[in-house]
Amino acid sequence: MTTAFLDNSTICAISTPPGIGGVAIIRVSGNNAISICDQILTKSIKNLNGYSIIYCSLKDNNEIIDDVVVTIYKAPHSFTGENVVEINCHGSSFIQQKIIEVLTNKGCAMARPGEFSQRAFLNGKMDLSQTEAVADLIHSKNKAAHQTALKQMKGGFSNELKGLREKLINFASLVELELDFSEEDVEFADRSKLNNLLNELQAEISILINSFRIGNVIKNGIPVAILGAPNVGKSTLLNNLLNEDKAIVSEIAGTTRDSIEDEIIIRGYNFRFIDTAGIRKTNDKIENLGIDKTIKQAKKSSIIIYLFDGSKNIENQLTIINNLNKEYQDKIIKVINKIDINHSIKTLGNDYLYISAKENLGIDELKNKIFDFTNINSLDNNNTIVTNQRHYEQLKNTLSELEIVIEGLNNGVSGDLLAVNIKQSLFHLGLITGEVSTDDLLSNIFGKFCIGK
Amino acid sequence: MTTAFLDNSTICAISTPPGIGGVAIIRVSGNNAISICDQILTKSIKNLNGYSIIYCSLKDNNEIIDDVVVTIYKAPHSFTGENVVEINCHGSSFIQQKIIEVLTNKGCAMARPGEFSQRAFLNGKMDLSQTEAVADLIHSKNKAAHQTALKQMKGGFSNELKGLREKLINFASLVELELDFSEEDVEFADRSKLNNLLNELQAEISILINSFRIGNVIKNGIPVAILGAPNVGKSTLLNNLLNEDKAIVSEIAGTTRDSIEDEIIIRGYNFRFIDTAGIRKTNDKIENLGIDKTIKQAKKSSIIIYLFDGSKNIENQLTIINNLNKEYQDKIIKVINKIDINHSIKTLGNDYLYISAKENLGIDELKNKIFDFTNINSLDNNNTIVTNQRHYEQLKNTLSELEIVIEGLNNGVSGDLLAVNIKQSLFHLGLITGEVSTDDLLSNIFGKFCIGK
Repeated sequence: MTTAFLDNSTICAISTPPGIGGVAIIRVSGNNAISICDQILTKSIKNLNGYSIIYCSLKDNNEIIDDVVVTIYKAPHSFTGENVVEINCHGSSFIQQKIIEVLTNKGCAMARPGEFSQRAFLNGKMDLSQTEAVADLIHSKNKAAHQTALKQMKGGFSNELKGLREKLINFASLVELELDFSEEDVEFADRSKLNNLLNELQAEISILINSFRIGNVIKNGIPVAILGAPNVGKSTLLNNLLNEDKAIVSEIAGTTRDSIEDEIIIRGYNFRFIDTAGIRKTNDKIENLGIDKTIKQAKKSSIIIYLFDGSKNIENQLTIINNLNKEYQDKIIKVINKIDINHSIKTLGNDYLYISAKENLGIDELKNKIFDFTNINSLDNNNTIVTNQRHYEQLKNTLSELEIVIEGLNNGVSGDLLAVNIKQSLFHLGLITGEVSTDDLLSNIFGKFCIGK
Repeated sequence: MTTAFLDNSTICAISTPPGIGGVAIIRVSGNNAISICDQILTKSIKNLNGYSIIYCSLKDNNEIIDDVVVTIYKAPHSFTGENVVEINCHGSSFIQQKIIEVLTNKGCAMARPGEFSQRAFLNGKMDLSQTEAVADLIHSKNKAAHQTALKQMKGGFSNELKGLREKLINFASLVELELDFSEEDVEFADRSKLNNLLNELQAEISILINSFRIGNVIKNGIPVAILGAPNVGKSTLLNNLLNEDKAIVSEIAGTTRDSIEDEIIIRGYNFRFIDTAGIRKTNDKIENLGIDKTIKQAKKSSIIIYLFDGSKNIENQLTIINNLNKEYQDKIIKVINKIDINHSIKTLGNDYLYISAKENLGIDELKNKIFDFTNINSLDNNNTIVTNQRHYEQLKNTLSELEIVIEGLNNGVSGDLLAVNIKQSLFHLGLITGEVSTDDLLSNIFGKFCIGK
């Protein structure tokens, strides 16, 4: 672990969302957090125990700035592992700014983005993947992203990586053992043990790597395209899906969300509609729509809802579907719309779902179908899901080093040479948790955090 | 005091600014705050003392939602005077929403805007003018507004009103006394005492009423107009004034402010430029500018900066000024611009300020002059300033009732009749602090608050 970043400065920042509210929190962390705050409060906090709270005024020289509630955390029992003072003030922008000004005048530095989390990492309170999970947690927009980040923050992923690391080290020592005795009559038990471990490692790392496909959709939403001829009701269906979700979201007042335009949440997962703006505006005739555009949308999506107009001949509407490769056909949910106009269409059988986007018929069934298509449900809840691009890449690096080891082992490469690649695979694994880290890596990771965390 | 609003419900709301941040606070208040939160936390808070904090997880049934820091306040030692639990969670919108959802599922009601402050009032923690000051404090955008609100919140205004109330009651008893003996040989000492009290009351209430003019500009900014012929440099001056301020504001990162477009802060006071968008766009010739438009701007402003082009003949630029009434002339600061082009213009004497908006010369002197023009400085810092329209109106009502009493007293109206007006003036005074209040009044006041306060 590098400690190049750790300095003795005491940092401060507004930790609550920017803007005006009832209350805001200014967080101060560092050796001098308590002594600096002690100078600007009307009651002394110097001799208070950790986990104390006190109600007093905060002043700039002799001018009262606000009445505040102050919480004291003493090193190492705080988020950062340092002395921490949290100042709850009234949520006026002016007061928040003023308190930051007073603190910096007294010697605090303004915290860089993510600097509190970075200190938590450098002080050994969390490993790197856990601190990254804090950022993911803060930006999680749905239940699945939230649960994955929470689990990672609480060390689920770290434990798994620790297990892998132990196995790798164990493997390294076995390799060494076998190679040491390679000129003698080596017992087969060792070789099979070696193979077993290798298989286990490969399998476990592969599962993690593969989980990123799901991790990525959890984080960024599952791409869905609604295709179909003009006037089959694509925009009506999309609006139906979107509006319902919006109504649910707006039920809870006092919170804002990122734009949910063209995104719906089904059972806690985000589904993101591809190029739907285009679809909603399109007035093309079916001839003009173009197979190219359709294939483009199909390529980008994990699920294709292919919509038919149930009030017209279905056979005539299969042109686009028939032009799609088998690869895309497997992603298609065939949906017949406008059953309010032509109820008898339902006789076409189970290949189709039957809905009326206009009359809100069959929409729940469609949502269930969309969700089932993701196969998310088949995941064991206890499985670790990799959601972070950086972790994904390091896992791939770990695996490719491991594959060099496997090949080398089969070709009788000497233990000394194999050790280089084993060390490399351990290095890549260590980059995930921060057991190995560089200043550049840390700057890059924490620079993406929000200020105050 | 009415208690019609007080119910037994336990309320909850997000108290920090809306959106995503490092940390957010969910506030819960009411009889059942502790028992409700106890059900959703992984550590029991039932037996904790007030002012305790605890670190644990928050769950929805068996699913962990977040790791939180919980602060417990026990009635009556809390902001609302009720049991209060404050939950510090990660500042994700999803988590904030989810915790509110869990709390409402367990029986909490969503807090109405200002409901926490309203409960503080109804439970006798603050009077009405103090709770209104909390809202003003949260929305204060400059030092002056902040200081006035803070002083009011801490009871400065309330104490003054209490003093007035006592004097009014004292006066009432003196009136009664004098009138009781009016047919006998009343001592003159009493009459002079009566007059003194009356004068004091009138004077004190008048000072408060008059302070509203300043209170209003503190809250809403002091209106300033920049007038002058085209191409004298009005927009350059305005941009010079605005940009400097914006640079100062943006120095402190991590906070947002309401738009400061066309507003500058001088020594903690807001100055607001009237119709400057129009001025900046105007290409009118001096003949077309029109005295009407100028008078309109002059009327709306407390200060007029009249700008001359120092590189041209000054006499020719006096047309507009000469057309303004004496009333407006008194508000004018005459400023000669472009001294970088014509430095010798300074010989025109002290009637004028000399600047170069382009070269940033003389701008500080201009700011000082603007500030001096407000006469704010002449105010004793300990003077109470009325900033609230509602308080202003009730003070005027109090005074007008008092004037009826004065007139009645001079005309020998009977004490019984005077008592009606004395009671009315006490009533209006009581409406300010909430000693007298109605449900409609309270709805109206607290409805304007933000949620979570």
